[in-house]
Amino acid sequence: MIATGFTGGWLDRADHVRGDPDALARLTGDWRARLLKLQGGDPSVDAEGRLAWGTLADAADDGTLVFLGLDDGGRPHFAESRPGDASGPARSPALYRMLDAMPAGDAAIFGAVRSVTGWHARNRFCANCATPTQVTRGGWLRKCPSCAAEHYPRVDPVVIMLAEHDGRALLGRQAMWPKGRYSALAGFVEPGESLEEAVAREVHEEAGVRVRDVRYVASQPWPFPGQLMIAAVGIADDDTLTIDANEIEHAIWATRDEVRAALAGDPAAPFLPPPPYAIARTLLEWWTAQSPAA
Amino acid sequence: MIATGFTGGWLDRADHVRGDPDALARLTGDWRARLLKLQGGDPSVDAEGRLAWGTLADAADDGTLVFLGLDDGGRPHFAESRPGDASGPARSPALYRMLDAMPAGDAAIFGAVRSVTGWHARNRFCANCATPTQVTRGGWLRKCPSCAAEHYPRVDPVVIMLAEHDGRALLGRQAMWPKGRYSALAGFVEPGESLEEAVAREVHEEAGVRVRDVRYVASQPWPFPGQLMIAAVGIADDDTLTIDANEIEHAIWATRDEVRAALAGDPAAPFLPPPPYAIARTLLEWWTAQSPAA
Repeated sequence: MIATGFTGGWLDRADHVRGDPDALARLTGDWRARLLKLQGGDPSVDAEGRLAWGTLADAADDGTLVFLGLDDGGRPHFAESRPGDASGPARSPALYRMLDAMPAGDAAIFGAVRSVTGWHARNRFCANCATPTQVTRGGWLRKCPSCAAEHYPRVDPVVIMLAEHDGRALLGRQAMWPKGRYSALAGFVEPGESLEEAVAREVHEEAGVRVRDVRYVASQPWPFPGQLMIAAVGIADDDTLTIDANEIEHAIWATRDEVRAALAGDPAAPFLPPPPYAIARTLLEWWTAQSPAA
Repeated sequence: MIATGFTGGWLDRADHVRGDPDALARLTGDWRARLLKLQGGDPSVDAEGRLAWGTLADAADDGTLVFLGLDDGGRPHFAESRPGDASGPARSPALYRMLDAMPAGDAAIFGAVRSVTGWHARNRFCANCATPTQVTRGGWLRKCPSCAAEHYPRVDPVVIMLAEHDGRALLGRQAMWPKGRYSALAGFVEPGESLEEAVAREVHEEAGVRVRDVRYVASQPWPFPGQLMIAAVGIADDDTLTIDANEIEHAIWATRDEVRAALAGDPAAPFLPPPPYAIARTLLEWWTAQSPAA
């Protein structure tokens, strides 16, 4: 199994507790309970770069408490969603630096927290009937008191993929990215399609390339705001590019040696690679270790 | 690549058209345009069991038009979401019979339609600010005129998996299922976890079994109401079961011969298998063709 970013959290989500109001009340009354320190959706870290935790006494009156789970010692952990929390795709440079230094298991817990707290901030009303919804199941469900609709935190599946042709991989760049960066193409899975169909559709839409024999590689969550990233590869029989300028600014076919140079930070590499906690980088690392596809 | 249910639709979704109001207007004015015949979210079929299509003249005044895509001849295809449409997980026995007889490509188009039209029926208001939202991008986006939030049709990733121990696969049954039916365990992917983590969490929650070495097998959409089903296998080192009665009623470990007998409809088989268009059945078929895992 391939290690990916934002995975490896060290809490047991203890789903059976969420549906048990008495058990939840006992846990919020546990003097050992810990509350993640957040500032507008960003974490605080200690001197070693680990997530900083306080106690439930730090919780605000207008916050929504989310039960994150139990650690090995049975100690309950919580986070708090506040009305003004960051809830979109944007990340601050300070957050990037924190993630670079954070242990993987802590980053995974922060990822879950960022997704769920941001979702609460954006989903206070019932989409079916416009009534304010009520938080239940320890912060993992919002229920409508009027029409009884149940709204669970949303997870948006996204495919991210390399098309391979003649030993080279297709990479693209968006205009808003740092200068020189190229990465795998990606797009949201739509209703009514498989992962494999979404991969083929996206590569064709963005670059005009048809792929076959799509293969799953790895997955990870991406908490800005709540994607499930699913990495794949496919084979292209034709390398002619027809770029959709609304999606990507430019695309290239890169050899394994060129990708290796980029990952190694070689100044002579033809592009800058995606950052370490992005699955695009994991996918490129995995691909450089594969034999050329038939 | 493994063929799965609700895949293989024969329309090009033509995403570039959705964002181009002039192009969309030309397509809705195309005399060749076809509108899927729907009754409360269920399809109508012709004598061969194929989807029945009418013209845009059949569209209702209170409906929401969804642009489905173009066929090989460039003919635009649409569906219509109506306020009272079926939008939940329930399916009628009549719909089951239609799906049994429907060509795969037609079932795939119906699946996309059912998911998107049901989503419109359940999502008329902005979850962020409670304002009625406006349909745009040919029915693939609802925008809030007040807070500018964008709401895309929701796709909920679900993992569905077999744990294997000593050549046998773990199957469970829910109390509401037809008598005797057993299937793979399944559950929604939560924010902040990978597919592999979701598989391990769900198998442990529902059956008390720990799995390792989780491997992806196949995927398909499930339009009741809008899941993306992701099938996987994992290895269990211990076959002791601890059932969560809120999730499943009973669980068994089945050998490959027992699964083969069930799939073949053998009356002596120890259980009834899932229906043909469910990925659980595809997963079981795939598994019977594999060598026992180490």
